[in-house]
Amino acid sequence: MNKKIKSKLDQDEITVGVVGLGYVGLPLALNFSMANLNVIGFETNKKYISQVNGGQSYISHISNIDIKAAKKNGLEATDNFRRITECDFIILCLPTPLNTHREPDLSFVINSMTQILPFMRKGQALSLESTTYPGTTDEIIAPMIEARKFVIGKDVHLIYSPEREDPGNKDFALKSIPKVVGGMTQNCLKAGVALYSKIIDSVVPVSSTRVAEMTKLLENIHRSVNIGLVNEMKIISDSMNIDINEVITAASTKPFGFVPYRPGPGLGGHCIPIDPFYLSWKAKEYGLNARFIELAGEINLNMPNWVINKLTVALNQQKIPISKSKILILGVAYKKNVSDIRESPSITIIEKLMALNANVSYSDEYVSSINDLENTKKPLKSKVITSKLLQSLDCVLLATDHDNFDYELIKKHSKLIIDTRGKFKKSRKIIQA
Amino acid sequence: MNKKIKSKLDQDEITVGVVGLGYVGLPLALNFSMANLNVIGFETNKKYISQVNGGQSYISHISNIDIKAAKKNGLEATDNFRRITECDFIILCLPTPLNTHREPDLSFVINSMTQILPFMRKGQALSLESTTYPGTTDEIIAPMIEARKFVIGKDVHLIYSPEREDPGNKDFALKSIPKVVGGMTQNCLKAGVALYSKIIDSVVPVSSTRVAEMTKLLENIHRSVNIGLVNEMKIISDSMNIDINEVITAASTKPFGFVPYRPGPGLGGHCIPIDPFYLSWKAKEYGLNARFIELAGEINLNMPNWVINKLTVALNQQKIPISKSKILILGVAYKKNVSDIRESPSITIIEKLMALNANVSYSDEYVSSINDLENTKKPLKSKVITSKLLQSLDCVLLATDHDNFDYELIKKHSKLIIDTRGKFKKSRKIIQA
Repeated sequence: MNKKIKSKLDQDEITVGVVGLGYVGLPLALNFSMANLNVIGFETNKKYISQVNGGQSYISHISNIDIKAAKKNGLEATDNFRRITECDFIILCLPTPLNTHREPDLSFVINSMTQILPFMRKGQALSLESTTYPGTTDEIIAPMIEARKFVIGKDVHLIYSPEREDPGNKDFALKSIPKVVGGMTQNCLKAGVALYSKIIDSVVPVSSTRVAEMTKLLENIHRSVNIGLVNEMKIISDSMNIDINEVITAASTKPFGFVPYRPGPGLGGHCIPIDPFYLSWKAKEYGLNARFIELAGEINLNMPNWVINKLTVALNQQKIPISKSKILILGVAYKKNVSDIRESPSITIIEKLMALNANVSYSDEYVSSINDLENTKKPLKSKVITSKLLQSLDCVLLATDHDNFDYELIKKHSKLIIDTRGKFKKSRKIIQA
Repeated sequence: MNKKIKSKLDQDEITVGVVGLGYVGLPLALNFSMANLNVIGFETNKKYISQVNGGQSYISHISNIDIKAAKKNGLEATDNFRRITECDFIILCLPTPLNTHREPDLSFVINSMTQILPFMRKGQALSLESTTYPGTTDEIIAPMIEARKFVIGKDVHLIYSPEREDPGNKDFALKSIPKVVGGMTQNCLKAGVALYSKIIDSVVPVSSTRVAEMTKLLENIHRSVNIGLVNEMKIISDSMNIDINEVITAASTKPFGFVPYRPGPGLGGHCIPIDPFYLSWKAKEYGLNARFIELAGEINLNMPNWVINKLTVALNQQKIPISKSKILILGVAYKKNVSDIRESPSITIIEKLMALNANVSYSDEYVSSINDLENTKKPLKSKVITSKLLQSLDCVLLATDHDNFDYELIKKHSKLIIDTRGKFKKSRKIIQA
C-alpha cells in the first residue's frame, strides 16, 4: 500500500471525502464521521450543502440529530472541489441512471471525476460505490487517473465497493450490512478493506473490481427477475381464477428450495428497475443478450397497463367509462413505508389514468405532493382518507400497501377496490390485480 | 365429511391404498404403515411388488430395515386392483412426464384411474399427489368419478396434495415437510387434512385443488427460473472473464433480498426440468405464454452444448480434436450424492460427445452402469478413479460434484479439467464452464 495512506490509516488520521450526499453518500458520511474520522462532503446541490451545514436532514429516515452530531464531529459539506486535495480517501456516491434509450448514463460519475482529477495527489485512494456494469472501474475510471500520470496501486489506489443501502430496512444498517470490496491491485484492495473496516463489521474482499461490480448487479438482477416471475405468474393465475398470493403463501411453507417474492403493480425505486440494464447493455458488447433481464424488464414495465386494464374492466361492468370515473390511488411511494417515489409504478398509473381523462387523486402520508406529472403543471396533493371521500369515489386502487392506511375503513366505504398487493380478500367489490 | 370415513378416521381404523410405489409412493406407504394404519401398495411393476413383499428396497435412500418393519406392520404390495375396495383412502403417486413434444402426459394417472374406478365405493377419499397443471383434479379426475354417479364431497372425497419429496435431503423427511392440501369441497378438504395429519407434523389447507396444484408448480418454476438465470449469468460472466461462483458467494453476503442458486451443466431430475412445462402448456389455453418458463427451459436445456463448446475450445488449444480425445465425465447423477440419473445433463453430454466420436467414460460411485445410451447398445460402466486413469485421459469433465470424489487426486493428475460446478480454482489447466 502507498506509505502515506498506510501510516495515516494506522494512526487513524485519515480524511474521507464523500462525493455526492444523497441516499448513499449522506449515511456513509455520517458513519465515517461518527467513527471519528474527518469527513468532507462534496455536493453540487447548494440546498443540500446548506442543509447539512445547518444540521438539517433532507432524507426521511435520517434525523437532524444525526447530522448535528456529525457536524459537531467536524462534518462539512462543500462544493469546493479544491478541497479534494485534503482527502486521503475519496468515495464517489453518485447516481448512475439510464438515459431515454435505457442505456447507462455515467455522466454524473464522469463529470465528478473531471472536477476531482485536477486536485488529486499521490497518497490518495478513490472508491466508486455507484452501481454500474463490469469494467467501469478499469475501463473508464482507471484511464482517467492514469492520464494524470499516477501509477494505480502505487501512487493512487482504486477501489470499487458497491453500496447496499436499503432505506426503510429496520433490521440492517450500514454498519451491519457486509460490504463487498474489489481493488485494481492487491494494494488497492488492502487500502479499501482497511478503510471500510473503520465503519463496517464485515468487509468482503473479492478478486477484482469486475467481480465487485457484477456482484451488485447480480443482487438486483435476482430481485428484478424474481419479481418479474411472480408478476407473470400473477397474470397466468388470474386467468385461471387462482389467487397468486394464496399460492405464494402456501409455497412458502416449503422449508427449502423456495423463497417468496410478492407481485405488485410494477417495479420502482432507483435500483431494481434500472441496474439490470447496465449488464444487458454491456453484454451486447460481447455479442450476448441478457434475456432474463430483458424479459423481467418487459413484464415489470407492463404491469401498470395490466392493472389499468383490470380497473377498466371492473368499472365497465358498472357502466362507468374511465373518462367519467373518480379514482383514488392508495400509496405512491415505490415501496411501503418510505417516501421515495423514484420510478414508482403509481406515478405511471396516475399519468396513464390522467391521459385517459379520469379524475385521479391519491393518498399517501409519506408523500405530501407530486410535482412534474406528465399531463398537468399543477402539483397533485395527497388527500386525507375519510369515509366521505371514499364514498364519493368510483374506485380506489391500492398501489403501495403502507402500514399506516386504515384498511378497515377503506374496505367498509369503498364502492370498488382494485388491490395490487393482495391486502384484501377477493369479493364482489374487491378485484385483485 | 362422509360418515363412514369420519368414523373410521376417528377410530384410526382406516386402510390406505398407495397407488404407485416409486420415489413418492414408497416412502408415503412406509410412513402410513409406521403410523399403524393398514397400507396396501398398488403397483404394476412385478419386480417392485416382489421386492416390497420380500422386504427389499429398490430406492437408494430407503433401507431394507424400513421396508421389513412396515411389512411387519401389515404393508403389502399388489397388482390386484380389486383390493381398492378395501381402502378408505386412495393416494395416487404416479409419474406425470412430458411426451416427446414436451406436452403433459397424464396417461399414467388416467390409466390408473381406469383401473381403480370399477372398484371404488361410497365412503372413500381419493388424493392425487402427482405434479400437474391447475385444473387436472377438477377437469379430469372429478368427471371420471362423477361418471360412476358418486357425488363428490358426499359419497366420495377428492383431494389434491402435491408431493414434496427431496431425495438425499438430510435435514427434512416426509414427516417434517409441511404438506399442502386442497379439496374439491370443504368436506373433501377436511378428509384430506385429517388423513395427512396422521403422518405429517404440519398440514397446510388451501382454498381449492387448483391453488394446491399451482403451489407445487410455482415451487419448481421458481427453481427452474433461478437456475436458468444463474446459468445465463454464468455465460455472460464467462465472456467478461468474471468467475460467476465468486460473484454468487460475494452476493450471498447480503443479509436480505438475495438467495444464492448455483449454475451447472444443465437441469436434471424428474421435477424441475419437467413440471414447469405443465403450466406453460395449460397457459396457452388462456391465450397466455409463460415466458419465464420457456426461457428457463431453453437456457437450461442448452447448457450441455455450452459446456461441450468450452471443452472443444480447450482441447483445440492443445491441437486435440474431440474425435481423437479421451474424456472422463465425473458424476452422472442429476445432483450430488444421489443415484438418480433421470433427465441428468451428464447423460446428454455423454451422448453428444459419443456422437462426436469422442472416447467417453465416466466415474460415479452411485451409478454403477448406464444403459440405454443413444449411440451404443453396450451399457457404460463406471470407472474407478486412479492416478493412472487420470493421466491416460485428455480431459476430465466435472458434471456432478459428489462429495466422495477425491478432488485433490483429480486435480493433481488430470491434464485438463472442465469444471461445471465451480469446485476448483481456475488455472492454466482448469477451465470453468
